[in-house]
Amino acid sequence: MKVISRVYGIKEYVTRARREGKLIGFVPTMGWLHGGHLSLLRSAREECDVVIMSIFVNPTQFGPSEDLEKYPRDMERDKKLAEDAGADVLFAPSTGEMYPDGYATYVEVVGPLSQTMCGGARPGHFRGVATVVAKLFNIVEPDKSYFGQKDAQQAVIVKRMVKDLDMPLEVRVLPTVREEDGLAMSSRNSYLSEDQRRQATGLFKSLKRAEEMARGGEVSAQSIKEEMKRILLEGKSVRIDYIAIVDADSLEALDEVRDNTLIAVAAFVGGTRLIDNTIIHHR
Amino acid sequence: MKVISRVYGIKEYVTRARREGKLIGFVPTMGWLHGGHLSLLRSAREECDVVIMSIFVNPTQFGPSEDLEKYPRDMERDKKLAEDAGADVLFAPSTGEMYPDGYATYVEVVGPLSQTMCGGARPGHFRGVATVVAKLFNIVEPDKSYFGQKDAQQAVIVKRMVKDLDMPLEVRVLPTVREEDGLAMSSRNSYLSEDQRRQATGLFKSLKRAEEMARGGEVSAQSIKEEMKRILLEGKSVRIDYIAIVDADSLEALDEVRDNTLIAVAAFVGGTRLIDNTIIHHR
Repeated sequence: MKVISRVYGIKEYVTRARREGKLIGFVPTMGWLHGGHLSLLRSAREECDVVIMSIFVNPTQFGPSEDLEKYPRDMERDKKLAEDAGADVLFAPSTGEMYPDGYATYVEVVGPLSQTMCGGARPGHFRGVATVVAKLFNIVEPDKSYFGQKDAQQAVIVKRMVKDLDMPLEVRVLPTVREEDGLAMSSRNSYLSEDQRRQATGLFKSLKRAEEMARGGEVSAQSIKEEMKRILLEGKSVRIDYIAIVDADSLEALDEVRDNTLIAVAAFVGGTRLIDNTIIHHR
Repeated sequence: MKVISRVYGIKEYVTRARREGKLIGFVPTMGWLHGGHLSLLRSAREECDVVIMSIFVNPTQFGPSEDLEKYPRDMERDKKLAEDAGADVLFAPSTGEMYPDGYATYVEVVGPLSQTMCGGARPGHFRGVATVVAKLFNIVEPDKSYFGQKDAQQAVIVKRMVKDLDMPLEVRVLPTVREEDGLAMSSRNSYLSEDQRRQATGLFKSLKRAEEMARGGEVSAQSIKEEMKRILLEGKSVRIDYIAIVDADSLEALDEVRDNTLIAVAAFVGGTRLIDNTIIHHR
């Protein structure tokens, strides 16, 4: 596996690969790789000729009081994991390489998509995400790019951006990968103490219960939210940020669960903000 | 010359051309073609294998009180001019094709580049420009794209965006093309009455005088601006929007003219807003 830290280095690599007619798969990450990232890599490996992963802890998507500084990093471990999962190239730029002096351009998906759910709690977050993903797409010029369903709103926003800006690539969104007890894999899980780790399963449990209620015919978003809240707050260190029941594409709030409904939760467990979600499909 | 109105049609054409290793040149315009546009086309023709021109009067770069509705349009005339100047493809999408229902993504170059000069008079204008140019670049995937120096601030902003977002193309900025009496060619010149047309030459005359003063050793931006103002206001229907003396790359205001100084003017002649500029090179 090649490790490249400069934009021109990747561009050179990609230009050659494209000239050879290779199909390029791309997995953008912030590193501290877990099973979710690796499942994206494996899909890219199956579907593409060349697999590029990026590791970049993107400062523009962190708020001033968020965890940019302490976000977990271990490049040596990540390199080994990426190589074992089949990456051909790891792109790991510095912040100065991505945002040099005089940098001034931002991509923004405006309106409800960016303002609800995590957008409410993290103003500017999705502008940072859209901007860095647009940059990475222009650098890597992938045919297919891979994202995890765990970050449901991010996936919707990236798909919206790609469609709106006519970007020449396909966005693949793959299922959330979970620990044995259901906790969605996340780099931020490493912040949890043993006790918090136990309480963190409440997110998954609350979503399972919501699915069960929906399957049983419950349509009231209010009733489902109340039941989810009850389950979440069984964890003594849990503070709910939001429970959202929305259309899975437009993210518009729904009073009644219907086909293609996204049920999403964000909660602090101790100081760690975790998210998880499920999509209800009728029929 | 092919005329294509759908995004997928251009994407299909471009994908084939790229597969064949063709170098793609792109000239984005709002139509009502004049000698400036045609000089861009001719350069693209010389430098590239395939030349694509777009004609799209982009609503997102017009303010609510601006001339979107009455902006001059004549597709049949433009088709003939584009074909004669060597275009292989004319991309002429509808507004609905470019901004379908649910459209929500914008590209913005923030800070002084977008706020000074025309950005002050036309809030949101350069956000509209950056957005549509980003879309067009993603649709056409050009190797080289051509812009006129007449729209100096637009050229700086597009170059900034391309650099910041790592877009895989070269931006070529070509000299302003002028009428015999020096008036910069512009689609908006067609709004001018005969009398206003005469007064409009004041923009060019004021810039010539500024160049002359700079060549003669005058460095004071203030003195040059005052002299330019005097010349411009010889036109009874002229109202000055701004005279700017700025660094040609950063657009930061300068008190003293130095190498690479952009001297730019925007003025209303009657109801028509015209712009023009020159760059001072020392040595």
